[in-house]
Amino acid sequence: MIKVGIVGGTGYTGVELLRLLAQHPQVTLTAITSRGEAGTAVSDMFPSLRGRIDLQFEDPATANLKECDVVFFATPNGIAMQQAPALLEAGVRVIDLAADFRISNIAEWEKWYGMQHGSAAWVEKAVYGLPEINREKIRNAQLIANPGCYPTAVQLGFLPLLEAGVVDIAHLVADAKSGVSGAGRKAETHILFSEASDNFKAYGVSGHRHLPEIRQGLSLMAGGCVGLTFVPHLTPLIRGIHATLYARITEEADFQGLFDARYAQESFVDVLPPKSHPETRSVRSSNMCRIAVHRPQGGDTLVVLSVIDNLVKGAAGQAVQNMNIMFGLDEKVGLWQLPVLP
Amino acid sequence: MIKVGIVGGTGYTGVELLRLLAQHPQVTLTAITSRGEAGTAVSDMFPSLRGRIDLQFEDPATANLKECDVVFFATPNGIAMQQAPALLEAGVRVIDLAADFRISNIAEWEKWYGMQHGSAAWVEKAVYGLPEINREKIRNAQLIANPGCYPTAVQLGFLPLLEAGVVDIAHLVADAKSGVSGAGRKAETHILFSEASDNFKAYGVSGHRHLPEIRQGLSLMAGGCVGLTFVPHLTPLIRGIHATLYARITEEADFQGLFDARYAQESFVDVLPPKSHPETRSVRSSNMCRIAVHRPQGGDTLVVLSVIDNLVKGAAGQAVQNMNIMFGLDEKVGLWQLPVLP
Amino acid sequence: MIKVGIVGGTGYTGVELLRLLAQHPQVTLTAITSRGEAGTAVSDMFPSLRGRIDLQFEDPATANLKECDVVFFATPNGIAMQQAPALLEAGVRVIDLAADFRISNIAEWEKWYGMQHGSAAWVEKAVYGLPEINREKIRNAQLIANPGCYPTAVQLGFLPLLEAGVVDIAHLVADAKSGVSGAGRKAETHILFSEASDNFKAYGVSGHRHLPEIRQGLSLMAGGCVGLTFVPHLTPLIRGIHATLYARITEEADFQGLFDARYAQESFVDVLPPKSHPETRSVRSSNMCRIAVHRPQGGDTLVVLSVIDNLVKGAAGQAVQNMNIMFGLDEKVGLWQLPVLP
Amino acid sequence: MIKVGIVGGTGYTGVELLRLLAQHPQVTLTAITSRGEAGTAVSDMFPSLRGRIDLQFEDPATANLKECDVVFFATPNGIAMQQAPALLEAGVRVIDLAADFRISNIAEWEKWYGMQHGSAAWVEKAVYGLPEINREKIRNAQLIANPGCYPTAVQLGFLPLLEAGVVDIAHLVADAKSGVSGAGRKAETHILFSEASDNFKAYGVSGHRHLPEIRQGLSLMAGGCVGLTFVPHLTPLIRGIHATLYARITEEADFQGLFDARYAQESFVDVLPPKSHPETRSVRSSNMCRIAVHRPQGGDTLVVLSVIDNLVKGAAGQAVQNMNIMFGLDEKVGLWQLPVLP
Repeated sequence: MIKVGIVGGTGYTGVELLRLLAQHPQVTLTAITSRGEAGTAVSDMFPSLRGRIDLQFEDPATANLKECDVVFFATPNGIAMQQAPALLEAGVRVIDLAADFRISNIAEWEKWYGMQHGSAAWVEKAVYGLPEINREKIRNAQLIANPGCYPTAVQLGFLPLLEAGVVDIAHLVADAKSGVSGAGRKAETHILFSEASDNFKAYGVSGHRHLPEIRQGLSLMAGGCVGLTFVPHLTPLIRGIHATLYARITEEADFQGLFDARYAQESFVDVLPPKSHPETRSVRSSNMCRIAVHRPQGGDTLVVLSVIDNLVKGAAGQAVQNMNIMFGLDEKVGLWQLPVLP
Repeated sequence: MIKVGIVGGTGYTGVELLRLLAQHPQVTLTAITSRGEAGTAVSDMFPSLRGRIDLQFEDPATANLKECDVVFFATPNGIAMQQAPALLEAGVRVIDLAADFRISNIAEWEKWYGMQHGSAAWVEKAVYGLPEINREKIRNAQLIANPGCYPTAVQLGFLPLLEAGVVDIAHLVADAKSGVSGAGRKAETHILFSEASDNFKAYGVSGHRHLPEIRQGLSLMAGGCVGLTFVPHLTPLIRGIHATLYARITEEADFQGLFDARYAQESFVDVLPPKSHPETRSVRSSNMCRIAVHRPQGGDTLVVLSVIDNLVKGAAGQAVQNMNIMFGLDEKVGLWQLPVLP
Repeated sequence: MIKVGIVGGTGYTGVELLRLLAQHPQVTLTAITSRGEAGTAVSDMFPSLRGRIDLQFEDPATANLKECDVVFFATPNGIAMQQAPALLEAGVRVIDLAADFRISNIAEWEKWYGMQHGSAAWVEKAVYGLPEINREKIRNAQLIANPGCYPTAVQLGFLPLLEAGVVDIAHLVADAKSGVSGAGRKAETHILFSEASDNFKAYGVSGHRHLPEIRQGLSLMAGGCVGLTFVPHLTPLIRGIHATLYARITEEADFQGLFDARYAQESFVDVLPPKSHPETRSVRSSNMCRIAVHRPQGGDTLVVLSVIDNLVKGAAGQAVQNMNIMFGLDEKVGLWQLPVLP
Repeated sequence: MIKVGIVGGTGYTGVELLRLLAQHPQVTLTAITSRGEAGTAVSDMFPSLRGRIDLQFEDPATANLKECDVVFFATPNGIAMQQAPALLEAGVRVIDLAADFRISNIAEWEKWYGMQHGSAAWVEKAVYGLPEINREKIRNAQLIANPGCYPTAVQLGFLPLLEAGVVDIAHLVADAKSGVSGAGRKAETHILFSEASDNFKAYGVSGHRHLPEIRQGLSLMAGGCVGLTFVPHLTPLIRGIHATLYARITEEADFQGLFDARYAQESFVDVLPPKSHPETRSVRSSNMCRIAVHRPQGGDTLVVLSVIDNLVKGAAGQAVQNMNIMFGLDEKVGLWQLPVLP
């Protein structure tokens, strides 16, 4: 059994980790921390867990996280870079669901996240936890930078095209739509029900923090700097990301075939048949990514549709997938629940 | 392994049965029928099942259901009473998710369902599949009448009070609210998104088909005819029933204690502590029923709050729970997934 | 033209007042105050008002509210009782949309609102602004206590029965469901989109602040103390209240006729024909209350269904209706927009 | 007073026309037809209109539409081309809200709409009713082809850029999201609440009927054939379209200034300040279009955000705006209601 700790379990990625790990047959949940909720029973905060998880939130200062085999950080940006190094040095493996270790260029990270980085050395050792690209490195990683939700959907959608070198990488467009849980469980006015329901809007058009992360990933795939226009939108669903990707064809190819081949061995990427339109609910509460590729009107522009559940494949599920790889388990263990539809 | 067949799998209870049974470790899905969709792959209709269920819908006329150990009917009212008897006589066990075998008074059934009953003999042999009441009978039943969604939430909420005989049974009130999936997957105008979202309404106030079913169940618990006012409402959620129950106290008792004691051994009924307000999402996609009991302002009226997922404990989950009991399995097998929250 | 001021215009009742008053042909919007947003253009906070209202929020300390003919308080409870008296003494008429002047029993108010009352003298002079009951008093009132949203829907639903004395007033039940905007525009976790959508729950069952207000109103109608069980629920819509009311018949009558007669002259109460089920969307964004009365199964319990838009007839619209009466205008002026459906 | 008839008033554009026209001070509603609902009172079908419209639906065969000054067709595609010519020849002016007269190339229309065109002669005389482009022609038109919802949002968003000739017209991208009412009030499974809520999907990527309409409009603006990739999506709101438009810069310009100047005199197009993100709810139930223009990261790609209410500026409101122009009224008459927010 893998002894697991969670730092910061009161947000949506935290409760989703709890849901997945509590049902994982190889995991013993050992500790969960929250500064604000120390002493509260986990199931008092999340009644969906009543009778199934009897842990209490502990103060991070006193929790014995060093006895864990792996610790998940489900904390706001800037926390893991402060607290993870001590655990890492004690031999604990760490999976950070925030952005602290995702961007290899420290200056770039500091510009987008507006703070000084506290742990540049560990950024260098961190492995970006997108299994479809980095599976081998993840196996032996001590520190995983778990990808963001938009970056997961967008990178998996562009990957076969960029690896094959068949599109204009200078002018990629990613028009992405996220459910509201992507904004976290923070008491902020703009994500109130009465503001966010029956409403649709773009945000962060001039620059969103996931832009540098996506650009870094796409550039690695393409073997060169990509130009990317990334526009995120807020849509009134709880869970789900739908990325609509546009790329100009530079070289003819069997585009459907590229996708089929690239993901043939992947358990959590499902390439749909031609003419398909994946729906976010078809992956709701599951770790699947479903993708379709279109060439509208036979023109020179490809359209790729990529959907994930932002809390699962876009956060907690992918983190568990990484854990499975790190500990030599089948990637699907604890992640093989069917999507909930309707 | 239990060989399972499903008749009529294209509605919401059908796809929910598929979701649960595909993940059930003791079940082999053998056949699924649909007159209208014969030849269609199940996963073409429900992409959430892609890669996990490779059955096709078969024509009911040719499907070999008699080889199954148990057949679930997820059909409209009036079908099972026609088609189940042949299976039953061949020794197959049957669980009907529709209303055909729920009402023991045939004349009453015919009045509410507006058709002649085709199988009065089997109504007599059918066991009403509410495990919290009929567990022993279910064990050896050949035919289960799986309860309706409203009847499940309302009966579990009133049960401890009626068995204890502490409330006025002549004037019970059940104000119940259902998510829209309770209306089924039929192309009808009033359940279109643009009609049912951002809207709330009562319906069927003069008489809803679940009224005689609930009244029959409550009368058995109370050992005498109950008077019940039942008002169902449509509320803009996909899944979930919230029953708010009102009963006049006739005899003082430890009401919280009655509920705690009655359900202490039940895996799928969770009595919340005093002052609690169960939310439908706390049981979303799970087989749990959560209940709280209140005595507002210390008055003479008790208020019981009872929530279930109408497609799980209110339909497919309870059907699987019944199957587990019938085949000697732990009731929780295949039903122990945690609710999806948020 | 009526010179109008608004104190506290940044909440939902505030923006709804702005929407209605900006379109009111007899009104000049003179000042709007907000401590937190002083200096912000109203249309920067609410882009729906761009190009139509060019006021800025002013600091309450410096705003010249005494030049107004009438000032609306759209503030949290406890503010109007502090700030309104100075205006009232200067001859300004005041309509308070909060609860400060609604409860005539000061001790009762202090118990439910958890603070000391600052202006008992003005409570005595205040008129409860439910036009269907108090129209004549409203005409000459200097201070209006505008009713709460639940109290409006519930009182209008019970009124004809209580005035006629045909039901058991000791055991009334009001099961009420509110859209989320009723909770206000406060950054609180439980009304986030990801918490409140696809969810349904009761709250405040042991005691909600609208209980004493409703009880006071019903007792006046009935000419004696009523017993009321009031259970509010949160339902995932933005606007709308649906009250389902239960009353035991004590005297036979033409109940439909009672409602028809009582509201025949009312512009904003629409009694539906027998067998009807009013939907909240049928009054969305309008000042209408629609009511239906049922006697299910010919039993001894009446069921009344009453719907309003909580922000209009339940708050800002009713406040404008009161203003119209106070200033001798037709009640419908500025309030005759049709509901927005779908 | 303008005598107005409506053909086919049972869909969402029909009821929205009724809402707007019933409140229009210069209009007398004379007749409304529906084959299926002849004899039904309009307010029985749409309770929101109770007490305000006392028309009944009439059989189209017997309704005296020729006495009207103007007749709106709110019918499915293919009806107006059959029925409008007789009215037009009798001197009645016609505004068709369907697609029958929108595409000047008959062969193109027949390809996309899958039927033979019945009235090519009138296509030639029809004026495309986008006032921001065709105001002068609309004034004297006898027949108006009222634009589609997506085409309105997309064309208004691209217009200033194409007229100025500053972007690459061969590679325009329009990523558009629509509320579900855009799909009409038809009983179809995929727009049921339980299918369309908490879900997001693209559809018609290989080719949507609005593509040729948009392409025709943009080509006229640009003075040459445009290349357009158009991807529509279904998003869980009732009303609203959000178009996110991408265009490659070919010539530097003050892009914000282009938009400000182009729409300075337009009552129903509101150009937001730089860095803005228009929300669909900011135009809900109103005839406004709000637009913002961005140049993310100072790159070579412009992003334009354009929002409308699909039932108002995207259908019934624009039709009334056209009527106002045709009859010499101020365009804003009957259309100056403020958006409903929240």
